[in-house]
Amino acid sequence: MVEPMKTPHKVVIVGGGFAGLYAAKALGKSGFDVTLVDKRNFHLFQPLLYQVATGTLSPADISSPLRAILNRQKNTRVLMGEVIDLDPQQQKIILRNGELAYDSLIVATGVSHHYFGNDNWAEVAPGLKTVEDALEMRRRIFLAFEAAEKETDPEKRRAWLTFAIAGGGPTGVELAGAIAELAYSTLKRDFRNIDTKETQILLIEGMDRILPPYDPKLSAQAAHSLERLGVTIKTKTLVTNVTEDAVTIRQGENIESIPARTVLWAAGVKASSMGEAIAQRTGAQLDRAGRVIVEPDLSLANYSNIFIIGDLANYSHQDDKPLPGVAPVAMQEGQYVAELIQRRLQGQAVTPFRYVDIASLAVIGRNAAVVDLRFVKFSGLFAWLIWLFVHIYYLIEFDNKLVVIFQWGWNYFTRKRGARLITGEESLLQLGIDENGDYYAPSGDRANVVTTHT
Amino acid sequence: MVEPMKTPHKVVIVGGGFAGLYAAKALGKSGFDVTLVDKRNFHLFQPLLYQVATGTLSPADISSPLRAILNRQKNTRVLMGEVIDLDPQQQKIILRNGELAYDSLIVATGVSHHYFGNDNWAEVAPGLKTVEDALEMRRRIFLAFEAAEKETDPEKRRAWLTFAIAGGGPTGVELAGAIAELAYSTLKRDFRNIDTKETQILLIEGMDRILPPYDPKLSAQAAHSLERLGVTIKTKTLVTNVTEDAVTIRQGENIESIPARTVLWAAGVKASSMGEAIAQRTGAQLDRAGRVIVEPDLSLANYSNIFIIGDLANYSHQDDKPLPGVAPVAMQEGQYVAELIQRRLQGQAVTPFRYVDIASLAVIGRNAAVVDLRFVKFSGLFAWLIWLFVHIYYLIEFDNKLVVIFQWGWNYFTRKRGARLITGEESLLQLGIDENGDYYAPSGDRANVVTTHT
Repeated sequence: MVEPMKTPHKVVIVGGGFAGLYAAKALGKSGFDVTLVDKRNFHLFQPLLYQVATGTLSPADISSPLRAILNRQKNTRVLMGEVIDLDPQQQKIILRNGELAYDSLIVATGVSHHYFGNDNWAEVAPGLKTVEDALEMRRRIFLAFEAAEKETDPEKRRAWLTFAIAGGGPTGVELAGAIAELAYSTLKRDFRNIDTKETQILLIEGMDRILPPYDPKLSAQAAHSLERLGVTIKTKTLVTNVTEDAVTIRQGENIESIPARTVLWAAGVKASSMGEAIAQRTGAQLDRAGRVIVEPDLSLANYSNIFIIGDLANYSHQDDKPLPGVAPVAMQEGQYVAELIQRRLQGQAVTPFRYVDIASLAVIGRNAAVVDLRFVKFSGLFAWLIWLFVHIYYLIEFDNKLVVIFQWGWNYFTRKRGARLITGEESLLQLGIDENGDYYAPSGDRANVVTTHT
Repeated sequence: MVEPMKTPHKVVIVGGGFAGLYAAKALGKSGFDVTLVDKRNFHLFQPLLYQVATGTLSPADISSPLRAILNRQKNTRVLMGEVIDLDPQQQKIILRNGELAYDSLIVATGVSHHYFGNDNWAEVAPGLKTVEDALEMRRRIFLAFEAAEKETDPEKRRAWLTFAIAGGGPTGVELAGAIAELAYSTLKRDFRNIDTKETQILLIEGMDRILPPYDPKLSAQAAHSLERLGVTIKTKTLVTNVTEDAVTIRQGENIESIPARTVLWAAGVKASSMGEAIAQRTGAQLDRAGRVIVEPDLSLANYSNIFIIGDLANYSHQDDKPLPGVAPVAMQEGQYVAELIQRRLQGQAVTPFRYVDIASLAVIGRNAAVVDLRFVKFSGLFAWLIWLFVHIYYLIEFDNKLVVIFQWGWNYFTRKRGARLITGEESLLQLGIDENGDYYAPSGDRANVVTTHT
């Protein structure tokens, strides 16, 4: 039914990630009354979060204030608030401090990381979803080198210089490549007691190859590039335990505990809590990861005015596996739903959503990436240039991020990292310093003092 | 006495600010065994910290890793550690987890802010010394606008839109100017319920004019520029109390309590705790702010091998007031002491330290600054260009900061702010949202709902 003009159709969008933001932008000229609700006041360009974690970029370089992005859309409001539930009968969402009515609801609250039921690992193996996550990873990575510089026990020092990354997907691959460049290039002159080239980087993947969703040829090329960078890849390997100073892995029958002070989690994801609420209130089905299974038009079977898009949605083209949780899917879903709501109100027919898969990309490091353009797959420098172009293109869409190009250019030519500061919770290292400025273990055992005087 | 070559002279520098870092760099070719100790792993370009607090720059833009700055100085080590005491007889400094022997000691631990005995104000009126301080200020400033957007009670909303800055020195002036540009220009299109142009910015100064150390003519010009920007200046005014929602000020006999949810502290400074330790161990005199009173060669009367430089030192040229706590003084003191130690060991004479005061600068905002070159004083666009040039010049000295020029250029022409993200401790606002997406006070009183539908 078409609404009378005096009360415009109310669209509420929950979540300002790629899916929600692209839906909001596509509704700019709809004449609807659009409200975008997010816990944070900024949109985060998540594909580059690993560069914040590894000291290349600052959070602001990949964040855009939602209000600034949407401030010219007169029909759109931004609310900073947390959505905790919904009432599909009353057509309301419930916020922590209030509620909000909708005619059409678009939920795009995404996913968080998942420790396969070992939530205590979160303490010792941070994931990479938020700005805070990235700064915590950065803090741990750079503190590990500081601790290694102070450590005198060769065993312990080795553990400080061992970085284990759980998960061989794009994030894990990109983290491994970036840490390799840090250790083997950026930091190589910075320390006096350690040789950062002794750093060990383990990339642990459960499947038989890294980048499983990609073409096997590209997985092989990515593996080759990473190994050339100095990364040790362990496939068909599961992380069975993580503690403060070791990671336990199982490869077939063979179980091994590797001393490592820095374990980074790039493995599983779990749907955000909104998934639960939607299932309870609407009877929608969830998949094993808690994502909401949606209709071909991305709506719910029982509520055609509620749409789930982005990582939170589980949608499969016919006899096909669920669409991957990547930005292009989210963007296209956002635009599709915005279009669909407008067509519906005009009584026009709508076709099911189809993801147009242009390319899969992953960067391995300086001059190295893999690109799958379907009709052609390749890796190396040219792939890296495509990766660069695509990311810059989407990054500058919200137009305050040209600075990133500059930062990258600078880093590329100087091999420097601008964003290496260790901030947040003061964490002073626990090792001792003796009167010669040499370090000793807190045991106070002066036998194993390393001298740094040349 | 000249040291035998096999045990090089040990110089320990505590603090990697301008004073300590410039001393370390000046000792690069000395052949001494130099150790720089700092709690943090980076040098902070403090003169631009206000731009981090107001969302123009990211912390990394004004921070340089100490190891990166000094990694080519083979005679220099960087230690990440906290110095808590010293033993001048044994010629050792005491760290939280150890100790470190020196032949010459240079202490440059600077100052922190000071609430004139009202330390409880720190909770509600953050100062601006560390990166964490700046991010906390940023969080409060941008959350205040979010809260105002949600607030429906006109009184309370006004308090959210009132920013009081205590202290009319350079930092206070620069904060006031930057917040004025945020409120009156950057954010003016971003909100739907509030008009950010209603923002009130108070700059509170105890003396009879802002920028007291400057020439009265420049103070007047700065005041004029700030008032044109929309800042209300209150001179001869003291802050007598600060609470979560109000600041109390006294001007002569007239006491006034102004509802303000955001109070920023740019008033007093207090010497870092090392001052106390030095006084106790060496009998050195402290001034009222806890700064160490030093000899004409910046050493201690009783210990000619201990030097205090930077903001922690109180040194006056003959019949002159103490040198101001600004970067140029710190840099020159660091270089002077580095030179002095080398000359002494070669048995050469040393002249007392004399600060060569080239210029005082303060920026008010876009195209507006004041510059005192002694032989000529002026303000406006040209002064602003000089301010820009000087800051860029010193910033890029450690060469990873060209990106700032780019960021500034971008902000200048777009009037945008790249770094507006609210991060850290999730702080969701306490106001309610009703089913129309309008806000109401938590009282639940729906009478005073503001509608935002046009």
